[in-house]
Amino acid sequence: MNPIPLGKIAVVGSGAVGCYYGGMLAHGGHDVHFLMRADLETVRRDGLTVFTNGRELKLPEVRCSATTAEIGPVDVVLIALKATANCELERLLPPLIGAETVLLTLQNGLGNEEFLSGRWGAERVMGALCFVCINRTAPGVIRHLDHGSISIGEFRRAASARARALAEAFHAVEVEATAVDDLQSERWRKLLWNIPFNGLSIAAGANVAEVLADRNLRKLARALMDEGLDAARRLGHPIPDSFADWQIDRSESMGAYKPSSMIDYELGHPVEVEAIWGEPLRRGIAVGAKMARLEVLYGLIRHLTARGSLRAR
Amino acid sequence: MNPIPLGKIAVVGSGAVGCYYGGMLAHGGHDVHFLMRADLETVRRDGLTVFTNGRELKLPEVRCSATTAEIGPVDVVLIALKATANCELERLLPPLIGAETVLLTLQNGLGNEEFLSGRWGAERVMGALCFVCINRTAPGVIRHLDHGSISIGEFRRAASARARALAEAFHAVEVEATAVDDLQSERWRKLLWNIPFNGLSIAAGANVAEVLADRNLRKLARALMDEGLDAARRLGHPIPDSFADWQIDRSESMGAYKPSSMIDYELGHPVEVEAIWGEPLRRGIAVGAKMARLEVLYGLIRHLTARGSLRAR
Repeated sequence: MNPIPLGKIAVVGSGAVGCYYGGMLAHGGHDVHFLMRADLETVRRDGLTVFTNGRELKLPEVRCSATTAEIGPVDVVLIALKATANCELERLLPPLIGAETVLLTLQNGLGNEEFLSGRWGAERVMGALCFVCINRTAPGVIRHLDHGSISIGEFRRAASARARALAEAFHAVEVEATAVDDLQSERWRKLLWNIPFNGLSIAAGANVAEVLADRNLRKLARALMDEGLDAARRLGHPIPDSFADWQIDRSESMGAYKPSSMIDYELGHPVEVEAIWGEPLRRGIAVGAKMARLEVLYGLIRHLTARGSLRAR
Repeated sequence: MNPIPLGKIAVVGSGAVGCYYGGMLAHGGHDVHFLMRADLETVRRDGLTVFTNGRELKLPEVRCSATTAEIGPVDVVLIALKATANCELERLLPPLIGAETVLLTLQNGLGNEEFLSGRWGAERVMGALCFVCINRTAPGVIRHLDHGSISIGEFRRAASARARALAEAFHAVEVEATAVDDLQSERWRKLLWNIPFNGLSIAAGANVAEVLADRNLRKLARALMDEGLDAARRLGHPIPDSFADWQIDRSESMGAYKPSSMIDYELGHPVEVEAIWGEPLRRGIAVGAKMARLEVLYGLIRHLTARGSLRAR
């Protein structure tokens, strides 16, 4: 039933991402413990429901807790909090961490592995990129809309046996998963899209289709990708130009898709400004990349998100 | 009473700017004819009122018309329409133009003199920069808040006798006025402020005080000025760096001032996007200036203004 034993798993940050990936592992028979706040009572009573690939997966008995002390030490922590809430991890993680505990961050952008390794040691830190469209439509109800693959790697090391084991464990529970040798390179590849499309969604109030339909914004999205390519290359991630072209092409099929940052901004929720724009800008500039466009976007988004959504008013 | 005869004057675009400068000339005894639309009936009945420097200037009998054909040929046309309405001039100006008619544009940004000279000949085109805070608070009521000086020059020529005569005529009616030898250079000086401060007021929703208080936006405003300085220099307008510093310093005293573009954007009125951002960008790029920041700002403002204010919703 469960070919790859991962031991005891904790999910910290039980939003859509945490519940989907944790839920798929639990459904496949893994020992998964969810840290929950708002949804705790509902999930204790009704369990978790994941709608995926035309099926309704019911997890009537989910292990969930209000504190990490209740969960105790685990083998793997899936970290799916927003990066803006990383400061909470200082308090949340210690009860979960034993000698061999792996911290796997599913978070967006740059700086999360560094945050974790600075506090709990680089050797236990791993990261994953989730390419997935999911919504939490009600407490304990996750709707998986599209994609879903996950790329798992070590922090500053090539893919290890444990990265491959995690990928295989996910694969066995119907989550497309790959172990990657260069996690940072994958992060930059994902950022090449997030920087312009999440960025312009906030600064111009434009969804993906609107960015692509506006000649100036489309050109700007590509120019922001070029700045990112230059920074990534200077940082040792030789991503080809054709990847940026492919990202633009791929976006055509997304239609009027609203990037998650746009939804967060419109709802007045925190936006991962530093992880997606601030940290890439600082790292690029530190190695001599010219990132004038990203500098503008970052300055605007920081100001706009700090003052709260203009649209929500 | 009227030391500098200017002959017959028409004001096209009788908003705050047109009514203030035209009203001051009329109050000083000049023969001024206002083209009016919305305010026509009120001004015919009640006249114009200008509050300036603690005084209330009453102009009980103002010559105003619904059509330029009614006004007929004049010696000077003061053009104070928004640049976004320039297309209307094709229809409005011909009845006003005789052999010697001067077209003096009081409009913002770049491209207005070129528009006029392309249609009615460069020799009759002059331009002026208005440094003034004024509001039209009710039909026929103009409130002059601060500043008010006007710099008048020839299009692509040094200040002529007629530029000096116009400046003296304004000066004689208590409007601080100067004849300038290099109108385009003055335009770039004014744009160095308008590009960042009007621009960030729309893109970041930030008034002058908010831009200056946000470390990133303040830096960005200065970087946008540097791009403008480079473009201006390449175009033959050697403005010193100290001018940009002075512009920033000067802005400190403005407090929470909302640039006119911000007010227009919030009210859903047309914004002079091409005159203030588009044309400077195109001219700078044409002479090899690097204007990546302006390119972003222009792209965002074009999109935001085309879709209508996000704030007004």
